[in-house]
Amino acid sequence: MSILVVGSVAFDDIASPSGSAKSILGGAATYFSLAASYFTQVRVVAVVGDDFGPEQEKVFHQHGIDTRGIERAAGKTFRWGGTYAGNLNEAKTDYTDLNVFERFQPQIPKEYEDTEFLFLANIQPTLQADVRRKMNRVRLTGCDTMNYWIKGTPKELAATLKLVDVLLINDTEAKMLANETNLPRAAQKVLAMGPQALVIKHGEYGATIFFREGAFGLGHHPFRAPSLPIDEVKDPTGAGDSFAGGFMGYLASQGEVNREVLKRSLFYGGVMGSFAVERFGTERLQALTRDEIDARFQIFRELTHLE
Amino acid sequence: MSILVVGSVAFDDIASPSGSAKSILGGAATYFSLAASYFTQVRVVAVVGDDFGPEQEKVFHQHGIDTRGIERAAGKTFRWGGTYAGNLNEAKTDYTDLNVFERFQPQIPKEYEDTEFLFLANIQPTLQADVRRKMNRVRLTGCDTMNYWIKGTPKELAATLKLVDVLLINDTEAKMLANETNLPRAAQKVLAMGPQALVIKHGEYGATIFFREGAFGLGHHPFRAPSLPIDEVKDPTGAGDSFAGGFMGYLASQGEVNREVLKRSLFYGGVMGSFAVERFGTERLQALTRDEIDARFQIFRELTHLE
Repeated sequence: MSILVVGSVAFDDIASPSGSAKSILGGAATYFSLAASYFTQVRVVAVVGDDFGPEQEKVFHQHGIDTRGIERAAGKTFRWGGTYAGNLNEAKTDYTDLNVFERFQPQIPKEYEDTEFLFLANIQPTLQADVRRKMNRVRLTGCDTMNYWIKGTPKELAATLKLVDVLLINDTEAKMLANETNLPRAAQKVLAMGPQALVIKHGEYGATIFFREGAFGLGHHPFRAPSLPIDEVKDPTGAGDSFAGGFMGYLASQGEVNREVLKRSLFYGGVMGSFAVERFGTERLQALTRDEIDARFQIFRELTHLE
Repeated sequence: MSILVVGSVAFDDIASPSGSAKSILGGAATYFSLAASYFTQVRVVAVVGDDFGPEQEKVFHQHGIDTRGIERAAGKTFRWGGTYAGNLNEAKTDYTDLNVFERFQPQIPKEYEDTEFLFLANIQPTLQADVRRKMNRVRLTGCDTMNYWIKGTPKELAATLKLVDVLLINDTEAKMLANETNLPRAAQKVLAMGPQALVIKHGEYGATIFFREGAFGLGHHPFRAPSLPIDEVKDPTGAGDSFAGGFMGYLASQGEVNREVLKRSLFYGGVMGSFAVERFGTERLQALTRDEIDARFQIFRELTHLE
């Protein structure tokens, strides 16, 4: 099954204790689609400016990603600059130039209308809801959001959450959204807002998926996938989007949504997130093979597997 | 195989968002020995004061714990007061009255000299080393420490680390001990200081065991056990000591130290830590059954188990 992602394509300036990189291809939709492309056919809806040229487009095409939904607008592409220090868990934003992204109104090409798996990357919640409503044949919708929308547009976000099946956020976001510091209780509160399942990403500790009672016809016990301790984290940018790409991409590739598939999806999410941080920007995600991915999947499996 | 623990027995005053408790039985050796008692015969070396009476002794004896090594000294037992707020991850110490613990010089009863498994709970590193040197028949030594000794007595701690097989500490302590923010690199640096294996406890995210190359004749790939997300953490006091009790107690019960046993030990550590936090003080640890423990072990196993 193919999957459609709607989100940002950007140029990033990144500095971390391991070095720095200027004007490299980034954005949630970019990380997501590269990660998902190892599992299934990916379609992208985004907006870019005049500075997005054949060099950038080639990155998508080399992975068979359908870019007919990437709109060209007059002006510059979204630009973000960030610096990581210390434990690398959080970026200090140096600047955000929304540029053409400021007026982004997602347009769905006719050829995409039959897409059955949808991922709404982190954009304004009303735009997320609009896209979901336009896609009549979607079977499963994944969604991301962030502190900015949780605090700034809670009503709009609440409306969007009623339309999505799986929400993927991190611990801090889950606790903020639920206004609850205990994680399992926060998860239950978020699930009561709409989603069938909630994936909470714990960074280097992995991720947990919580289910609503009866979701997907499954038992509601949570499931956790570990992450691999990485010797050198060069650039954490895009780790969460790469996680989402691995998770949703594997899910879409299986067609059927059942508990075992969701468990494996969670492991593949962790695998793709762990690759993403090993190099600056999308460098590592651009140059993987499915064999490398499956070898790391096995390592993750062994990491917590009892005989 | 029986196991000997050397550490503190205390009375605690604890307050958390779930309530408070006054003058309840606590201390690292208490939590450790209760947790370990579900797996194997436990011996304790500690010191208490005049206020430690039959009521407290009964808690140990009801679990078949050998208290001949608990020395009675004139004065009061060690007392600690702590308050938890917010996310419960760290206690604010309200007061510490060392009392008889200030002059603790561990004495090993003759009947304990044949013990083959030893756990050095968090006490002054030189005392830990002295105990280890006195125990000629020990096959495996586990050890805990804390920020106070890492910062305050680094040389003494370095000498102790050369004598222990498994060090059990948390993320913050590991990073501080290694002076390194990346966890796998910190683990390698700590292993180079002496221990064959290093267990790093991640609180609600579980724990990872790292091995020296060739340790215990095993492969050196790390292994991770998850922790169960607990709906209500009433009192985190003693979680780490209960983890150590489950880990070391199960290990001692198996006699043989191999990779599969160490993996299961890590799971049992998480299980006992997760029980400990469900009630104030040692209440939950006092009233468990092995069936309840094994049922939770199965839940932990399922939590990350792929078919």
